[in-house]
Amino acid sequence: MAGSSFGKKFRITTWGESHGPAIGVVIDGCPAGLDLAEADIQIMLDRRKPGQSRYATARSEDDAVEILSGVFEGKTTGTPISLMIRNRDHHSADYAAIRDVYRPGHADYTFDEKYGIRDYRGGGRSSGRETAGRVAAGAVAEKLLREMGISFAVRPFSIGGVAAVDEAAVKARLEAAIKDCDSVGGIVECIVTGVPAGLGDPVFDKADARLAQAIMSIGAVKGVEIGDGFAAASHRGSENNDAFRADEAGRVTKQANHAGGILGGITDGSDIVIRAAFKPTPSIAQEQESVSRQHENVTLTIGGRHDPTIVHRGMVVVEAMAAVTILDMMLENMASRAEHVIRFYGNKK
Amino acid sequence: MAGSSFGKKFRITTWGESHGPAIGVVIDGCPAGLDLAEADIQIMLDRRKPGQSRYATARSEDDAVEILSGVFEGKTTGTPISLMIRNRDHHSADYAAIRDVYRPGHADYTFDEKYGIRDYRGGGRSSGRETAGRVAAGAVAEKLLREMGISFAVRPFSIGGVAAVDEAAVKARLEAAIKDCDSVGGIVECIVTGVPAGLGDPVFDKADARLAQAIMSIGAVKGVEIGDGFAAASHRGSENNDAFRADEAGRVTKQANHAGGILGGITDGSDIVIRAAFKPTPSIAQEQESVSRQHENVTLTIGGRHDPTIVHRGMVVVEAMAAVTILDMMLENMASRAEHVIRFYGNKK
Amino acid sequence: MAGSSFGKKFRITTWGESHGPAIGVVIDGCPAGLDLAEADIQIMLDRRKPGQSRYATARSEDDAVEILSGVFEGKTTGTPISLMIRNRDHHSADYAAIRDVYRPGHADYTFDEKYGIRDYRGGGRSSGRETAGRVAAGAVAEKLLREMGISFAVRPFSIGGVAAVDEAAVKARLEAAIKDCDSVGGIVECIVTGVPAGLGDPVFDKADARLAQAIMSIGAVKGVEIGDGFAAASHRGSENNDAFRADEAGRVTKQANHAGGILGGITDGSDIVIRAAFKPTPSIAQEQESVSRQHENVTLTIGGRHDPTIVHRGMVVVEAMAAVTILDMMLENMASRAEHVIRFYGNKK
Amino acid sequence: MAGSSFGKKFRITTWGESHGPAIGVVIDGCPAGLDLAEADIQIMLDRRKPGQSRYATARSEDDAVEILSGVFEGKTTGTPISLMIRNRDHHSADYAAIRDVYRPGHADYTFDEKYGIRDYRGGGRSSGRETAGRVAAGAVAEKLLREMGISFAVRPFSIGGVAAVDEAAVKARLEAAIKDCDSVGGIVECIVTGVPAGLGDPVFDKADARLAQAIMSIGAVKGVEIGDGFAAASHRGSENNDAFRADEAGRVTKQANHAGGILGGITDGSDIVIRAAFKPTPSIAQEQESVSRQHENVTLTIGGRHDPTIVHRGMVVVEAMAAVTILDMMLENMASRAEHVIRFYGNKK
Repeated sequence: MAGSSFGKKFRITTWGESHGPAIGVVIDGCPAGLDLAEADIQIMLDRRKPGQSRYATARSEDDAVEILSGVFEGKTTGTPISLMIRNRDHHSADYAAIRDVYRPGHADYTFDEKYGIRDYRGGGRSSGRETAGRVAAGAVAEKLLREMGISFAVRPFSIGGVAAVDEAAVKARLEAAIKDCDSVGGIVECIVTGVPAGLGDPVFDKADARLAQAIMSIGAVKGVEIGDGFAAASHRGSENNDAFRADEAGRVTKQANHAGGILGGITDGSDIVIRAAFKPTPSIAQEQESVSRQHENVTLTIGGRHDPTIVHRGMVVVEAMAAVTILDMMLENMASRAEHVIRFYGNKK
Repeated sequence: MAGSSFGKKFRITTWGESHGPAIGVVIDGCPAGLDLAEADIQIMLDRRKPGQSRYATARSEDDAVEILSGVFEGKTTGTPISLMIRNRDHHSADYAAIRDVYRPGHADYTFDEKYGIRDYRGGGRSSGRETAGRVAAGAVAEKLLREMGISFAVRPFSIGGVAAVDEAAVKARLEAAIKDCDSVGGIVECIVTGVPAGLGDPVFDKADARLAQAIMSIGAVKGVEIGDGFAAASHRGSENNDAFRADEAGRVTKQANHAGGILGGITDGSDIVIRAAFKPTPSIAQEQESVSRQHENVTLTIGGRHDPTIVHRGMVVVEAMAAVTILDMMLENMASRAEHVIRFYGNKK
Repeated sequence: MAGSSFGKKFRITTWGESHGPAIGVVIDGCPAGLDLAEADIQIMLDRRKPGQSRYATARSEDDAVEILSGVFEGKTTGTPISLMIRNRDHHSADYAAIRDVYRPGHADYTFDEKYGIRDYRGGGRSSGRETAGRVAAGAVAEKLLREMGISFAVRPFSIGGVAAVDEAAVKARLEAAIKDCDSVGGIVECIVTGVPAGLGDPVFDKADARLAQAIMSIGAVKGVEIGDGFAAASHRGSENNDAFRADEAGRVTKQANHAGGILGGITDGSDIVIRAAFKPTPSIAQEQESVSRQHENVTLTIGGRHDPTIVHRGMVVVEAMAAVTILDMMLENMASRAEHVIRFYGNKK
Repeated sequence: MAGSSFGKKFRITTWGESHGPAIGVVIDGCPAGLDLAEADIQIMLDRRKPGQSRYATARSEDDAVEILSGVFEGKTTGTPISLMIRNRDHHSADYAAIRDVYRPGHADYTFDEKYGIRDYRGGGRSSGRETAGRVAAGAVAEKLLREMGISFAVRPFSIGGVAAVDEAAVKARLEAAIKDCDSVGGIVECIVTGVPAGLGDPVFDKADARLAQAIMSIGAVKGVEIGDGFAAASHRGSENNDAFRADEAGRVTKQANHAGGILGGITDGSDIVIRAAFKPTPSIAQEQESVSRQHENVTLTIGGRHDPTIVHRGMVVVEAMAAVTILDMMLENMASRAEHVIRFYGNKK
């Protein structure tokens, strides 16, 4: 368990470096009998492709996913689903310049400290490209979640400190950053609708704790909040508590959703509201101070085109990680009550 | 794995309900040969005791910890360390009133939805009392961490929206909340000094991802951030990147620590900076709207004295979870390089 | 995960040393709503108590189990069930003689090599007393399994090389061993009836692989086999294959059960047949050659009364481990098919 | 965790079906800096190839392994090593006849009961072909183990009930089985030399318990034993106990190795001795009784050539699983003592 796996029942393991032969993911524990084709996955992968906005890099990636196992005659079989995406656009030579220099804000230095070796080409394992495997797994999870009425809405919440709804201001921030050879951070919001009450476990595997790990594990994310999150720290209890009310059909509802759909670590049936803070793209075209692998002080200029913000490409990754986490909790939760277990297998007492 | 365990090598499992006979924790994987006595644990447990500030409830808890296993002649033996704290102050009758009502902001409703049954006395498993087990385990982790020069500083960062350093303003907020039968949230900051570079694994078990799970798993926490966190989302790359510099001894240092000590999910040797957003105490003395277990609309008044804020009692829990997580990553990291493994066991080629 | 936990959904963690204050087990993931009282557990614990046969040691143990958490008003709540048994019969002084000597066939030497320290009193963590926690957990598992019509039959299969059904021969072997200050091994057979088809996962978590770990983890067990086991290695395929036949109701049955109820790692609905080989009790009253902790050659005589065979006390432990493993696989298996997941949560497409 | 992963630190995940596009394995947690090339893996994979003895099927498999990630400039980087082997020899049409019939001794029926669907081509996931991924991972583990002086010797122990050393008798058994359109089982023995004392954890993750899971998880294995194993059940304690003796250099040795190198679940520095009982090949050319997928009684004849015994091809799989298990325990064990942890990170008290 060196950290490349996530999930307990719906367990994903990603592998691959930015400039190796391929990247991929193995999904172990996907329930059998789900209709699944490469197109189901490709559609979500295409959402993370560069070149979809003028604020994302132009590297041409086909990202064509190949299903290598676990699907037979168009249905999942319950065995591991191995998904692979061949890497194409190799210009490893471009990276020779940064082979011996630690880029600020990147993982170059820390990988060397941990492993004594690093695949420096394009960021290697710490490249954003690793997230393609997550997105592919998320597409599979969403396919099953949709059958149970669960849907995802993800959007930029703010970019460079301005609300994403103010599109003109966002555009101005991004253009200014580009002009200054700089970048900006932003916040992504993901809302999950239709999640049943009762998911997540008390204590360490609370629904919010597992979502926090899932989302914070995305490379550039530096903060995660659920519902009102950090704002709740400024609020009073009388504001923050969501009053329960029964509707005419006797169903329990909440008058508000400051909790973001999770109480005591367990989903309450309301929308799950997640926000992730992305730091500004660390690769910027400005000259920066740094050190070499030999621990000499150097100045560094990172060539190539860089995204002025990671927010747009990060959205689908946030959604994918939320989907994987929620499906995993749903599969886990089926055995929470003895009466459900007995009903499933039949009472033979 | 129903969520009561945390950690991979230094693995803790907490158990117990607020008003059951006892609560406790089992630590599996504590290295052998560490000096350990009950007093080492008690000192940290006492920091979470109520009645330490006038803003924390007066329930008298002895919280006297008993070591039941894993320690022999004053040293850990490598086998599971079982720690137990007997519960004392039982007035279960007090809780009969809320047996059939779901308190807003609490886990009453969600536990019933998940399990169909709940120990309603004092919040049962979702009580803050569960955190005593975490703190006891954190004390053991810190004992070993201290031997390696790693230390923890935890403090309130803000309370009710005002900076904690402005003590007069904080006091005013708390007094106002008490007067209004209300509560306020706050932010806790924990800084860990002396952590070596190289901890944490790429991808899902990033140091920040595991800390995020650890901290978000504390009952009232609704947000977690590392380093500049959410503020980084408003910054530019040129501000947020920490320039590397070599000092005269050739050691790599950073000119700033916006990253909070973690780059690409791996520690960089700087201080680790964690902030946790606590929601306001959900138990307030005001009348609130809610529903009964039978899904009827009711009004509810929660009797007893309540903490106007959880921040003071939450601090030691944040520190404990950080300690457990960091020690666990240190133990995990020892096998990261083949050369270290070969040196440990001896090269016999 | 230092090896004191077993199971994925129904996960047990044992703790405690033979002569520490107490031993116990924490069960995390027991489904909620199961009727459970201390008597349910005590009855199974009593089956492993010494003094039940004249071939088991006379140490008086009360082994009175205490439920510390996870049960409320007579039902499991879904939260961890902590079970504790206080140790009573402490004569630590008796063990001073072996403090510095490694008993042949015991774990004294290997614990010292691993940890550099060992609780030598009564075998410490490697004492058979650790199995009380397993048996307590097994009693909880069996309580739920019985509700689904699953039952266990465990018996001695052979003792000292003679078939257990030949009671006179067994008695002769045991009496001879006692007379010679020696001990004998034996084989325990456990048959589980009523197990549904479909349990276990392909590849590493095959039903037989998990049972093999479970049973081999019992201290004195040196071999595990399923169905015909080692005998199958001498058989032909035409003998060993169990022919399938449909009965009049169209149910699939097998004409034989050489496979011991497991095909391809998945249960087939037949009885599960497990056999465990127990080595002879390593503590014998004869003088033995050994080394001291200081690596000097010594002769050693282990005082006290010793069981001439472990088989009788091991039976209930085999049963308990089988129960824990099978229940765990049942809980895991509920999410194997997409249609079952969708039915559980409701198709809302 | 649907059973396709094994190991805690050196964790392998296999994927793939016999007649899908490819099969493979992801190794997460291999220490960085190990020299590794495809040839290192291919040499071990070639040992499981068919056609190496006249008693193994002639299906031509290239089994050419491709390293897709985790290796850079000839060295492991600490990130996941993804290994893939394309499937070649597809004659899926051949399998149409058994699409609707459950072969005795195979997993056809149990997969259908578990998943409601199965890739019937060549056994799908339950094919022996899955073991190629295990062998590839085993080759990586052995590469590192060899650097620490650990070596493996695997051999047939008996075939069809006769000792493997009696080659003429074995040949007669196999020829007779072929003539009768039948098959025979056998026992494989694996001896591991150079393993340090101290590996394995007490209780559930004993060295023998983890080896038992590892070996029993190989498709046709029905029994596992360590050291004297089942024979120990017939022995007396005075025979079975291995006397300790100190040699002239003060090193602890054992006068015998009935324990097979493991005492109390922890390695004692002696050779580890493992035996695995393989059942006879279930695919035989004789007519057999069975049922159809529609639960009708049928007779079945399995076409094609079948191995008269699995023993020869199973040997390298036993070795590979032993290697993976032992390396995993070595990585785990590095954090067993506080003094080792403190020395690794430096005492800064």
